[in-house]
Amino acid sequence: MQHPQVEAFAGQEGLIRVVGHRGARGLMPENTLEGFGFTLACGVRLLEFDVVMTRDNVPVITHNHRLTGSIVRDREGAWLRGAEPKVSDLDWADLSQLDVGGLDGSSAYGQRFPDQAFLSGVGIPRLRDLCRLVAQPEYEDVHLMLEIKSDPDKMKDAQVRAGIVAAVVAELRKMGLTERTLMHSFDWNLLAECSAQAPEMPTSYLTQLPENADDIGEDSATNASPELTVDNPPDLICAAGGALWCPYYLDVTAQAVARAQTLGLRVAVWTVNEVAEIDRMIALGVDAIITDFPGRVQHRLLAHGLGWAG
Amino acid sequence: MQHPQVEAFAGQEGLIRVVGHRGARGLMPENTLEGFGFTLACGVRLLEFDVVMTRDNVPVITHNHRLTGSIVRDREGAWLRGAEPKVSDLDWADLSQLDVGGLDGSSAYGQRFPDQAFLSGVGIPRLRDLCRLVAQPEYEDVHLMLEIKSDPDKMKDAQVRAGIVAAVVAELRKMGLTERTLMHSFDWNLLAECSAQAPEMPTSYLTQLPENADDIGEDSATNASPELTVDNPPDLICAAGGALWCPYYLDVTAQAVARAQTLGLRVAVWTVNEVAEIDRMIALGVDAIITDFPGRVQHRLLAHGLGWAG
Repeated sequence: MQHPQVEAFAGQEGLIRVVGHRGARGLMPENTLEGFGFTLACGVRLLEFDVVMTRDNVPVITHNHRLTGSIVRDREGAWLRGAEPKVSDLDWADLSQLDVGGLDGSSAYGQRFPDQAFLSGVGIPRLRDLCRLVAQPEYEDVHLMLEIKSDPDKMKDAQVRAGIVAAVVAELRKMGLTERTLMHSFDWNLLAECSAQAPEMPTSYLTQLPENADDIGEDSATNASPELTVDNPPDLICAAGGALWCPYYLDVTAQAVARAQTLGLRVAVWTVNEVAEIDRMIALGVDAIITDFPGRVQHRLLAHGLGWAG
Repeated sequence: MQHPQVEAFAGQEGLIRVVGHRGARGLMPENTLEGFGFTLACGVRLLEFDVVMTRDNVPVITHNHRLTGSIVRDREGAWLRGAEPKVSDLDWADLSQLDVGGLDGSSAYGQRFPDQAFLSGVGIPRLRDLCRLVAQPEYEDVHLMLEIKSDPDKMKDAQVRAGIVAAVVAELRKMGLTERTLMHSFDWNLLAECSAQAPEMPTSYLTQLPENADDIGEDSATNASPELTVDNPPDLICAAGGALWCPYYLDVTAQAVARAQTLGLRVAVWTVNEVAEIDRMIALGVDAIITDFPGRVQHRLLAHGLGWAG
């Protein structure tokens, strides 16, 4: 029997899914409750986001392991300057003082999102805060693509890995959300640990070929995986027991998508923002498109006679 | 003494105001509660919108006098085709069946807003519905720029004009919002009627020179005004008793902005969406920028060391 959360991310006849990347990063501050709320208000019910652990073992929703001046302000409203502290060296009490409501438009990262709303007084959410939001009855059709970010300094430590997974799974179980969540990572060891601890939660394998890894101002993808080529991920992920393959959009070929779907994998492509690339993904027949601009993808799907929910 | 709602739209040292045009038309369906809610969530507290009267005298929030297939779907979800009914020939009960949650991306109008979220089951709001929203305590700092659209077929009828103004003013007075609302129109006769009926509500004079009037897929601006040139609106509006001048952005010159401000008028420019034009308006020192993309204007203001609220 198929897991319900895999069905939620699966394309159908006439339908490609839209997944909001960190909420809707093009328009609202990433990985914030405000951004998730907006994405849901757009009629997009699939949310992708990133989880990192604090020193005191609180799963929080933020992308980079280090707090960066391009998105983080202190309680006086000043951008963080100088040394960038690691999230894992701070307690939740420290993190909760910070403001992630606005991008620094003068930074290289900020220049990528010139239309993002600039808010103030917006905190880093805990995983618990998002769970509380989507546990409300009006959001019972919402599903989560929860990326666990492996700390590059600790990726080889099986005990650290087990601890992160245990904390995340405990939070989801407490809120009754394990059947609405996919575990999503570049770290194949971590996904194996997820499957061991929470077999009710299918796994989603992120990949990015090194030659295409050039996202400005972000932690780069660290594939803890077998050596990857353009063609080999579907077979490797199938053998590893994965349910979804999530390739970087520049890596994707028609052959590889077809191979993945033949093997029974679902294919969700990230992060697809330009019209030409959205159209190319639609032509490839992927199952889901992960995007910073949900409205743009909705309109491209409609232009091709497709929908995104059903 | 200055009216508080004029102060709310007035620039200050270090500050140019941001006004959400029909909510945030670039990103959310125009003139909907969903769009207004998003604009408020962006930290933009000044809302521009359009009011038209139904046959049964209900002020509703919609731009065009005729329902157009590019934004209106019937209750089966089909775009309106063929004859475009006039709002003033329909009762509120009829209008309330329609869905304005999504643009038809294949229409000329729809192609102007490729990033707008596509929603379903979103109704045309009544003025009353928006008043209820902003009457909530959390929105006590929100101010309204209420455009009354004069029906071109009835613009010469003083009785019709008096009736429209009376209905709108009654609604605002009932909700205690007259001191948070500007009356805004291209129809100078209508604005004079507003001042007569509701002297507590200052007036905002929209202008567009005929040579620049080319908004695709919209009712064109019908200036019921003295003959306009590039230079004469400030003196004419001052003489008419206006508080704001709202010129079309392509019409605006440094001389005219300076003249308006010398006369004590506030200048709010519409609808400014492109970065180069936003920057030009900032350089001109206008009081307020009316935009379909509030986040984009926020970031241009920040880039110039300016804010938008205070």
